[in-house]
Amino acid sequence: MAGTRGRRPAGSGTREAILAAASRAFAELGYPRTTLRAIAKDAGVDTRLVTHYFGSKQALFVEVVELPFDPEVVMAAVIGPGLEGVGHRLATFAVGMLETPEARRTMTGLLRAAASEEEAAVRVRELLVARLLTPLAHHIGGDRPELRASLTGAQMAGLVLARHIIGLPRLAAATPDELVAAVGPVLQHYLAGNLSPDTG
Amino acid sequence: MAGTRGRRPAGSGTREAILAAASRAFAELGYPRTTLRAIAKDAGVDTRLVTHYFGSKQALFVEVVELPFDPEVVMAAVIGPGLEGVGHRLATFAVGMLETPEARRTMTGLLRAAASEEEAAVRVRELLVARLLTPLAHHIGGDRPELRASLTGAQMAGLVLARHIIGLPRLAAATPDELVAAVGPVLQHYLAGNLSPDTG
Repeated sequence: MAGTRGRRPAGSGTREAILAAASRAFAELGYPRTTLRAIAKDAGVDTRLVTHYFGSKQALFVEVVELPFDPEVVMAAVIGPGLEGVGHRLATFAVGMLETPEARRTMTGLLRAAASEEEAAVRVRELLVARLLTPLAHHIGGDRPELRASLTGAQMAGLVLARHIIGLPRLAAATPDELVAAVGPVLQHYLAGNLSPDTG
Repeated sequence: MAGTRGRRPAGSGTREAILAAASRAFAELGYPRTTLRAIAKDAGVDTRLVTHYFGSKQALFVEVVELPFDPEVVMAAVIGPGLEGVGHRLATFAVGMLETPEARRTMTGLLRAAASEEEAAVRVRELLVARLLTPLAHHIGGDRPELRASLTGAQMAGLVLARHIIGLPRLAAATPDELVAAVGPVLQHYLAGNLSPDTG
């Protein structure tokens, strides 16, 4: 129990204890309700030590976050069969994944962290580029694959923001099937369509 | 000069002084670097009074924010000529508007506020629904106009988030023309296309 622990001195194991406490707190409370103070209390350290090691709640979140899916497995399933129908397959995967509370918590937490602090935005960007966008660009090929991957990411981020963070009523009320039908052709366009209708 | 002002007592004019100081601070410093303390100092009041009147920086931002365009004028220009080409016209307007620093500051500020605090998200949602999405749905008509308007908003929010807040490298480097060409067909689909390819 957190309340019965003594204070832990700085040094060996402290960083790990903070990371473990942060993982628990973000998973149990969600990103907005988690505080550095609660994490410090659970880890048995002073709040200033958490700030010393990690800087901010946003930075700590990006440090402990794990994507709720394995990008390589997903890309093999979505892009492996070829570019025909790839938008529908990706929309089906992404919308379905976001129906689970854990995945929603992780993805909304990443966007909240990125939007609230410039230092955290840099780390979220690095995470997204390294784990998702660069591999996606590599798999799809075609002209300007990095632009295609980034436009795909922007569309999905916008959907998470509008449906799950801002909570636009008509999107919050939409069924997964309705969203997949509406968004699938858009992802198809970004991943495999003609991005330059006038010149290409 | 802010530094030479005396403290202003609570009461008549205080709320207005805080709002005026907030408008100046957000415009000059941008959303992330503005603090309640700096706003309070400029308004000549105690920081606690700012919190008392407005609750948080996010809530105060939504209170003073003004959209960097007149929605009715934009909708008349974009949707007035009819649904053919509406996606290209809206993409041209939105991407072009975001090239100006003031508009970018306002729109990124709105999304940052919404993402950082649940209370602010409610206010941003109300603002977007009342000023943009409901009028847009009314103008476009068709089947499920509220869904069309919300999907359009989600796409634009995702672009602002990915290009201007997270700063995905390939989107940050894209030219306005490149973005309009890529995003125009998507907005056309959301505003006037078939959202249910399987069922008609």
